[in-house]
Amino acid sequence: MYQPRVGDTLAALDTPALLVDLDLMERNIATMQERLRESNARIRPHLKTAKCPEIARLLVATGAIGGCVSKVSEAEVMAQAGIEDLLITSEIVGVPKLDRLSQLVQKHRQVKVVVDSLEGAAALNQAMERVQQPLDILIEVDVGQHRCGVQPGEAALQLARQLATFSFLRLRGVQGYEGHLQHIANASERERLCRQSMGLLTATVADLRAAGFPCEIVTTGGTGTAEICASYPAVTEVQPGSFIFMDTDYQHALGPVYASALTVLATVISRPAAQRAIVDAGLKSLSTDSGMAQPKGLPGVRYSHFGDEHGLLEWSDGETAGATARTMQIGERLELVPSHCDTTINLHDTYYAHRHGRIEAIWLIAARGKVQ
Amino acid sequence: MYQPRVGDTLAALDTPALLVDLDLMERNIATMQERLRESNARIRPHLKTAKCPEIARLLVATGAIGGCVSKVSEAEVMAQAGIEDLLITSEIVGVPKLDRLSQLVQKHRQVKVVVDSLEGAAALNQAMERVQQPLDILIEVDVGQHRCGVQPGEAALQLARQLATFSFLRLRGVQGYEGHLQHIANASERERLCRQSMGLLTATVADLRAAGFPCEIVTTGGTGTAEICASYPAVTEVQPGSFIFMDTDYQHALGPVYASALTVLATVISRPAAQRAIVDAGLKSLSTDSGMAQPKGLPGVRYSHFGDEHGLLEWSDGETAGATARTMQIGERLELVPSHCDTTINLHDTYYAHRHGRIEAIWLIAARGKVQ
Repeated sequence: MYQPRVGDTLAALDTPALLVDLDLMERNIATMQERLRESNARIRPHLKTAKCPEIARLLVATGAIGGCVSKVSEAEVMAQAGIEDLLITSEIVGVPKLDRLSQLVQKHRQVKVVVDSLEGAAALNQAMERVQQPLDILIEVDVGQHRCGVQPGEAALQLARQLATFSFLRLRGVQGYEGHLQHIANASERERLCRQSMGLLTATVADLRAAGFPCEIVTTGGTGTAEICASYPAVTEVQPGSFIFMDTDYQHALGPVYASALTVLATVISRPAAQRAIVDAGLKSLSTDSGMAQPKGLPGVRYSHFGDEHGLLEWSDGETAGATARTMQIGERLELVPSHCDTTINLHDTYYAHRHGRIEAIWLIAARGKVQ
Repeated sequence: MYQPRVGDTLAALDTPALLVDLDLMERNIATMQERLRESNARIRPHLKTAKCPEIARLLVATGAIGGCVSKVSEAEVMAQAGIEDLLITSEIVGVPKLDRLSQLVQKHRQVKVVVDSLEGAAALNQAMERVQQPLDILIEVDVGQHRCGVQPGEAALQLARQLATFSFLRLRGVQGYEGHLQHIANASERERLCRQSMGLLTATVADLRAAGFPCEIVTTGGTGTAEICASYPAVTEVQPGSFIFMDTDYQHALGPVYASALTVLATVISRPAAQRAIVDAGLKSLSTDSGMAQPKGLPGVRYSHFGDEHGLLEWSDGETAGATARTMQIGERLELVPSHCDTTINLHDTYYAHRHGRIEAIWLIAARGKVQ
């Protein structure tokens, strides 16, 4: 039975298969670095996108300060992979997770967490007290996304005062994530709203500092706002994740700044009608939360999911249609660009990283499915 | 660190966690059997839903003829688990998959596949010739879904004649799947359209038999149409999958015939506002291709995803809202009923099967992610 190996061509792979174009991924990493070159902010890439130790190490090797992860189980994978400076960006609640965190922090002391409530802080302190190990804490501030986070200003200040009463929690700074702005297609509107969010965040930082609370870490931003956030001297780091791969949803908003480095290789398995082809990639290979994937290099061809394991390709009449119909025979392969990279990657176990059509690396998506 | 064990209460689990209520699942299986009791059709459950050897074995133990799977890699898992009579319901295309299939069939001779083209059949025959092993084939007929499948009648007959020229392919019957009808909420309309589809399928069976082609296997139907399909004497088996668990999408169409046996256990991690709670289950724990999950036992509370790892609970003003707000403290747990069981299960690695709140079994979702 065929087992993919480094050096094989993509043509040898079974499908569906998740592909990473290494030239494009490396160019995307260089582009982000270049765009942040004038700022003081470091990159702490959000590793929830790639979910892969090899990619995390590559990011650190090219200048990242460490990484963000969403969950304790993701942090375990990345700490094990040698990424020391990790920030868990979601509030940690519940005995099993707190126990897991306290185990992790004993070995990996640079793991940091966020908190947005007194109850949350008390539970963290209790867990850390049990293992007699201090924990670095950031206050999560709601800068307009209205997800987690305390309100900026007085509420943040109040939580900082409460945190000071917990012996095992060390307040290191704040997190504010303007996730609601990342995909705004109008660049000046995105910037205007981001500056509002940064206004709230930096004013809160000023309040905290004035009250004697340290804010060595001010972390914020995503792929759509990283440059704007990084232009504030108070911001010490930004958290983009998708920039390394991109997806059609981000590309719709940001234009061609970053290239589509991630695709799903699929095979035509049925040609039941002149203007319809069925491929072997459906809901289980391509996420649809941000719309449908797009066929790469096939203008005029539309993809939509057609059940768990099937996808539909359709095209309109005309010359292109004729040409497409002729090439879209059973067995033909094509690449589909995901609409949302994070959730598509979460459906796969392996990256096939290639350069010029030849596999250069096979990487396990070791943090796939780490939802706890 | 906590490791879940049989006998533990659900309260001990970390979240998000995928739960199966065994009383309800067993009742659903019994309900389907009862509803098909008067027919000749056997149940060949579609194992792409559960993706789990233990559940597949339970289905066979309670009368299933074997199982359906979508892909060769799923068939490998189920054959390994002892499910001998397997039908792969998607066309198999490409050298790696054909090689894999021919390896599988040498050990598991009751694995059957579908075909809808001469090219597909020729490639299958070539692969089987290499291993000198015959293969059971069903012709897939398009009964109105317009996905894969040859047209009913003459086109099917023509493919049957072509198949007869291939020494290693044994035509055993036909598959016709009316997937487009499964979720029609108007029961009489669903039945009317299903009878149209069954008319196409059974007429094709009659044509094939009249031309001397055997049709020992006539396989069709899903959870929404199984009883209607099974009422046709020509239909030998039906392929429902979702009935064992259900989901809100199916329940919207079918009403309370089957119970919601599958939920995702989640935890409230933030209470940033009076009418809003944030839970730890987002796009990576609950699929959204068929809408949003529903909180179980919390009337008036709406769930929506809020990113990969967050979900939003909202409720309206009023008495219920007041009561909900009081109970929805940080750390509170709730169950969410998935909108689409197949794709939600595909996000998880483990089922926690429970009875009356106590874990009775922990099952690996061994066929999760088997898209090839």
